[in-house]
Amino acid sequence: MKAVIVGGGVIGGGWAARFLLNGWDVAVFDPDHEAERKIGEVIANARRSLPALYDRSLPEAGTLSFHEELADALVDADWVQESIPERLELKHKVLGNLSELAPENAVIGSSTSGFKPSDLNSEGARAIVAHPFNPVYLLPLVELVGDASETEKAAELLRDIGMYPLKVRKEIDAHIADRLLEAVWRESLWLVKDGVATTEEIDEAIRMGFGIRWAQMGLFETYRTAGGEAGMKHFMAQFGPALQWPWTKLMDVPELTEELVDLIAHQSDEQSGHLSIRDLERQRDDNLVGMMRALKKNNSGAGGVIARHEKNLPYIDDIDLPITVDRQIPKSWTDYNGHMNEAHYLEAAAAATDRFMEKIDADAAYIASGKSYFTVENHIRYLDEMLAGERLIITTQVLKGEGKKMHLFHFLKNADGKLAATAETLLLHVDLNTRSSSVPSPDVATKLSDYAQAHACLPMPEGAGRFVGQRST
Amino acid sequence: MKAVIVGGGVIGGGWAARFLLNGWDVAVFDPDHEAERKIGEVIANARRSLPALYDRSLPEAGTLSFHEELADALVDADWVQESIPERLELKHKVLGNLSELAPENAVIGSSTSGFKPSDLNSEGARAIVAHPFNPVYLLPLVELVGDASETEKAAELLRDIGMYPLKVRKEIDAHIADRLLEAVWRESLWLVKDGVATTEEIDEAIRMGFGIRWAQMGLFETYRTAGGEAGMKHFMAQFGPALQWPWTKLMDVPELTEELVDLIAHQSDEQSGHLSIRDLERQRDDNLVGMMRALKKNNSGAGGVIARHEKNLPYIDDIDLPITVDRQIPKSWTDYNGHMNEAHYLEAAAAATDRFMEKIDADAAYIASGKSYFTVENHIRYLDEMLAGERLIITTQVLKGEGKKMHLFHFLKNADGKLAATAETLLLHVDLNTRSSSVPSPDVATKLSDYAQAHACLPMPEGAGRFVGQRST
Repeated sequence: MKAVIVGGGVIGGGWAARFLLNGWDVAVFDPDHEAERKIGEVIANARRSLPALYDRSLPEAGTLSFHEELADALVDADWVQESIPERLELKHKVLGNLSELAPENAVIGSSTSGFKPSDLNSEGARAIVAHPFNPVYLLPLVELVGDASETEKAAELLRDIGMYPLKVRKEIDAHIADRLLEAVWRESLWLVKDGVATTEEIDEAIRMGFGIRWAQMGLFETYRTAGGEAGMKHFMAQFGPALQWPWTKLMDVPELTEELVDLIAHQSDEQSGHLSIRDLERQRDDNLVGMMRALKKNNSGAGGVIARHEKNLPYIDDIDLPITVDRQIPKSWTDYNGHMNEAHYLEAAAAATDRFMEKIDADAAYIASGKSYFTVENHIRYLDEMLAGERLIITTQVLKGEGKKMHLFHFLKNADGKLAATAETLLLHVDLNTRSSSVPSPDVATKLSDYAQAHACLPMPEGAGRFVGQRST
Repeated sequence: MKAVIVGGGVIGGGWAARFLLNGWDVAVFDPDHEAERKIGEVIANARRSLPALYDRSLPEAGTLSFHEELADALVDADWVQESIPERLELKHKVLGNLSELAPENAVIGSSTSGFKPSDLNSEGARAIVAHPFNPVYLLPLVELVGDASETEKAAELLRDIGMYPLKVRKEIDAHIADRLLEAVWRESLWLVKDGVATTEEIDEAIRMGFGIRWAQMGLFETYRTAGGEAGMKHFMAQFGPALQWPWTKLMDVPELTEELVDLIAHQSDEQSGHLSIRDLERQRDDNLVGMMRALKKNNSGAGGVIARHEKNLPYIDDIDLPITVDRQIPKSWTDYNGHMNEAHYLEAAAAATDRFMEKIDADAAYIASGKSYFTVENHIRYLDEMLAGERLIITTQVLKGEGKKMHLFHFLKNADGKLAATAETLLLHVDLNTRSSSVPSPDVATKLSDYAQAHACLPMPEGAGRFVGQRST
């Protein structure tokens, strides 16, 4: 398959990357001398991120070419995408040329944010609107507007490259999403102008609250869920009066007639009526937790709040062996067998190793100084199933701690003290600059040795020093 | 610490859960006979999800009590939160009582979505606005409006329970977030009324595109990033004209004077100027990938699109041993040592086991029929570092496959064929109803046996059958 990209800015480059990394050949036409560099940068970003969404490899990438003649670029095209500036007379000219020169069966899509197909085609072009969202190589949404059979053909091709085509049933300026965005943009400009909030405060008001909600449910399903068992009609009855209040500068509001209320309630039933409010709440919460945990890894937005809060949570005191993990098992750690997945037993054990490292001062500052421990072997025995919501407590015994070696044995138990797994782990101290083994600092060596000596009197744990499949003694 | 919750609906219940699970005692006052059941349901939801955000345990939960007398409930309160219906005369009455009866040093917060502090306190109450977002036990945002020293005190307490207080610098109807929400709500009502889109289509237009973007950056930082190196002023020059176009029903727009453009550009520099556009793009992309991977686990929204697309990606052909994984390493799999974290080697090996199970027909349908394999032991040897963006290919050798046992050996290699790790894994076939071991179906047994026989001629892999710390031979 072959895509032709006309106009190679951030959007055109995003389209190029999306097609290319899904195995299409891509031909670019852009008079800008910088086009190759600019598109190259977007594709570099895309190579870093798009395949990381998948747990399988994408098809072999296609071939990228740049052309000085439009007609050359268009040979054998299956899709032609125009992403030039938002000026109607320019669109007319370019889309006219494309309609004339492109193969008859090629889709001609315009990335326009605002123009309707009837605007674009008023001088004889045959384009449809195929409006994507930045970054095009990651976000799935493409709004399709125009001729029914063309948009249907386009939708199928877009699904093949991992996108989500949304056919807009009636043309309107700015389609759907950009109308909502424009309303927020205008309201935000007022807030800044009137000194109510800064750009940063507005951004925080979005991403710490409704933004993360909207990443997984839109406006209506969110309100349906919030409305509870009483349903969408009840929600609207409750919030209907606010339409008359000065809650936004958008005061030209539709009248909330019985007809409109019924229409919305009916559409909401069609959309979400197969799920109970409890189902919706759980879906929402599982999504929020999963996303916030992902953001926590990057110390970003709502995830950054969790990370900062977590740092201040006290560790409980050690009893016999040091307690290195005490946590609840999140639902995202479970798998198709309905229990904690094998890899997350190790994720928890690895966190126990990290915590133990902190206890011997091999902490973040130590790592920043260029020293760390690398794991060289793990042996995990799975003794009992663990379920979402259960408490997991890990205690850690030092089997050996001298020279470059640290040999640990983690006991993974549930709240009742029942052993669910053991993890035996061998680590080597390394110099992070040379990436080769080295001795720890005197302080770390002493602290580790103290633990090793204190634990020397404990019996060797049942299960240590065993190979996979070894019979119990 | 003690919080008093006045009004126990979805919002009051969410506050109760948030305080309670962070170790506060919570006293509830609500004349509704159903209050205890309703709050109980919200707390049950919260117990399932809030601790799952953390990799440490939260403090021991506080004590929950219900009171019939307001004065009883208020004894020793540190925080009093009013979450009653949005009727001003009712707010006046309740907040008046609270101001009279609550301890002097207690914060009195109102969950009001719309009223300004000057509205709430016009009859002598001393409340501040503390406006949270549903679900209150998960979303961090709380808008604080009112007396400076009271909001400062409130902000500190909210941070302690993992929330993100946003002090609003100037009171206005509906504060900040709900003004943006109300604008979108009104615009959406028009779209439904005019037959441009259904509720479901609007929701998809949000969550498949800008919604997920807003979960990690707000409006202004997103546009700054999209604007590229030319900066925020360039972005505004480009999109300024759209303010005059009919892109929303919100036509009462502020004039984009040089002063307003400068103000926004300046605020945006203050907010994000310490990061280059490239930094911002990478932060954005890492966040999007992390969140979309989280949503993929739940088969929800943009993650559902990825899951469906992934299912259609072809597996490449087996060569010598079956290829059970071929993928790129996402950045979220790396850790503080700058390389793939030990647990994700196992996550990949576990995926290889899953894929091998599919190859012997122990697939999703088989699992749905009540049979599966459970891992009982893993032994992983880490031989080389792997970095984000690298390709990882796993091949799988069957060491044993008879009766209830399946003993596999996974070779984890990079694109050059260099061995980065091995994972030896022993599984037992189980009946998912009794959760105890059982023999596989004849079809699965035969397919497994075919592989075992074909691999019987291969040498035992170096590293198989070894215990942790065993010297190389």
